[in-house]
Amino acid sequence: MITLSSDFGSPYPAAMRGVILQASDARIVDVSHEFPRQDVDAAAFWLREILPYFPPAVHCVVVDPGVGTERAAIVIRAGEHALVGPDNGVLLPAARELDDAFEVFEIDYENPESITFHGRDVFAPAAATVHEAGIDDFERDDQFLLTETFVDLSFPEPTEREDGVTGEVLVVDDFGNAITNIPGAYLEGHFGSDVTVNGVWAPARRTYGEVGEDSRVVTVGSHGNVELAVNQDRGDERFSVHPGSRVRLRWT
Amino acid sequence: MITLSSDFGSPYPAAMRGVILQASDARIVDVSHEFPRQDVDAAAFWLREILPYFPPAVHCVVVDPGVGTERAAIVIRAGEHALVGPDNGVLLPAARELDDAFEVFEIDYENPESITFHGRDVFAPAAATVHEAGIDDFERDDQFLLTETFVDLSFPEPTEREDGVTGEVLVVDDFGNAITNIPGAYLEGHFGSDVTVNGVWAPARRTYGEVGEDSRVVTVGSHGNVELAVNQDRGDERFSVHPGSRVRLRWT
Amino acid sequence: MITLSSDFGSPYPAAMRGVILQASDARIVDVSHEFPRQDVDAAAFWLREILPYFPPAVHCVVVDPGVGTERAAIVIRAGEHALVGPDNGVLLPAARELDDAFEVFEIDYENPESITFHGRDVFAPAAATVHEAGIDDFERDDQFLLTETFVDLSFPEPTEREDGVTGEVLVVDDFGNAITNIPGAYLEGHFGSDVTVNGVWAPARRTYGEVGEDSRVVTVGSHGNVELAVNQDRGDERFSVHPGSRVRLRWT
Repeated sequence: MITLSSDFGSPYPAAMRGVILQASDARIVDVSHEFPRQDVDAAAFWLREILPYFPPAVHCVVVDPGVGTERAAIVIRAGEHALVGPDNGVLLPAARELDDAFEVFEIDYENPESITFHGRDVFAPAAATVHEAGIDDFERDDQFLLTETFVDLSFPEPTEREDGVTGEVLVVDDFGNAITNIPGAYLEGHFGSDVTVNGVWAPARRTYGEVGEDSRVVTVGSHGNVELAVNQDRGDERFSVHPGSRVRLRWT
Repeated sequence: MITLSSDFGSPYPAAMRGVILQASDARIVDVSHEFPRQDVDAAAFWLREILPYFPPAVHCVVVDPGVGTERAAIVIRAGEHALVGPDNGVLLPAARELDDAFEVFEIDYENPESITFHGRDVFAPAAATVHEAGIDDFERDDQFLLTETFVDLSFPEPTEREDGVTGEVLVVDDFGNAITNIPGAYLEGHFGSDVTVNGVWAPARRTYGEVGEDSRVVTVGSHGNVELAVNQDRGDERFSVHPGSRVRLRWT
Repeated sequence: MITLSSDFGSPYPAAMRGVILQASDARIVDVSHEFPRQDVDAAAFWLREILPYFPPAVHCVVVDPGVGTERAAIVIRAGEHALVGPDNGVLLPAARELDDAFEVFEIDYENPESITFHGRDVFAPAAATVHEAGIDDFERDDQFLLTETFVDLSFPEPTEREDGVTGEVLVVDDFGNAITNIPGAYLEGHFGSDVTVNGVWAPARRTYGEVGEDSRVVTVGSHGNVELAVNQDRGDERFSVHPGSRVRLRWT
């Protein structure tokens, strides 16, 4: 199985599918091609949330603002999974979540047909090669070179305060829910109460349905983090936040 | 075969795919993840139109504004098909279309990992279980309990009048065509003539191509209902209607 | 393998998937359902760029502003590939790219269920029939009639000038890159220099990454043509062009 993730929209991912299907009978499963454009942090977040739900697979990821520059291409083996993508940190949070004892390999790729479409010319062929060689074994192909040097990426940590906690918005999902870096555990003991978010009042509840339609709510999303939401509307707009915004939660 | 339908956009459906692939080798086919947000009626309409074109399959559907509340989760067996989703009526028109002698089972699910993502934690696992157990046989698993109690849903009926018919817009498709609840048979005898729609003149024609580019047309869509359209433009805007709008057709 | 391409968005392609799956166990692969609406030229361009990356397959294409009129439905055999779609030229550039010795067959289809959804009622069934009969052999089914008459389509040629070249924008991709009909070879000898585009200065570079963020750049895209781009922003907006816009490149 090979999964595909990118910020390409349509139709560029189709060329990646074609290239893989020329080289492999693998089942191809799309994770998303709608990741926010060239936003390495957002893609890294979603991959960490989603890939652990998959059975062993080769995960081919292209969110790559540095395409055409000197950045390396890598494969990471993490447990029974392999992740293929650019060396810009996008794979690291997911790799660490899948298996902390991951190994990183640099891909010694030939000059690609296009300097701007490594998804088609570098990453899709590498994913097919890893899949055909086997996730346990692919480094027998000497284009994959074990390395200790790679770009890491981690999400910012929230800061606990006497009367609350300060974090930031990591991503906004398609529903407009603003997902923060604040672990949901911080809300325990406050469900049913009101809190303030950047000075604005909002009820802390276990789920959207506990507040009226169109009402703000601070809750814990399916990813386990604190989320700023509005029941049946967009939380990002109603809390005036976007990725990177500071979020000051204060217990009241 | 397992089909997936939701209003999730991207990337949440990927977690559902992963969960299913952990439990089953079923072929997974997307129906849509772009159903209008939390619009149970629109999803019910599309499912009724589309699912009958599929071979026997388990259809997993998540359009679920009541997630996190007490609403039940159900499986419906309708002929050779099974439909899995929330007990909010979204499955009923399709079930009835597939086989009027359908049976409804409540899913006795364990506490899900997330209170807000039953697609991943309740419906996808249930769909995989139904698929692996077999559509004819899944109730041997005692998590599926035959029930006579479920939320039903039906579409409003149009009202015939002396000089026409009054109905409403059920959904607007991606092309901007406003699809009404008025059966296409009402237009028979009027093709080639003009009618009025909420007082505005428009030609009744068998297809868009019979009017000039950018011209309004009242026609019968692929679903068999009367549709308000504009050749190569959006009918909803040009007829000033949206889902729920009253549509008064008058023969002239 | 059957690939699907359309301008349908969602959820109409699902009915095509269902129809095919009733008739065939073929693997179904989406190319795109987000082609610009009813834009035959744009779809023809993308198909020519993408289909050659696929292994032998039946490619079912529905970008069909003439649906419901008298336009024919055709299958083209081009090398080991078959292309199924409307006779409006959309298949021709891809067919010619796959194999210049292509053959065209008219489909003698029965009256479809819907006059406006030939994707579901004509093209999907025809694609399944071609797949099941075999790409080498499908014309044994007498619904496929070899023909010399079909609508052709070719892209405009650029005009070389003493001090540059004049072409036009063929399509704008999801990133906002404006893809022209000017072969990338014209930029050889100018990389590293500045050029003007419709009188506006811009650097010619081999890749986006060679200019600063938010800067205009004239480059060669993955399709081999000259592209007007902005590093991490939309080239179409910053160069004030859209499909069909004249593009005058002048060396400086």
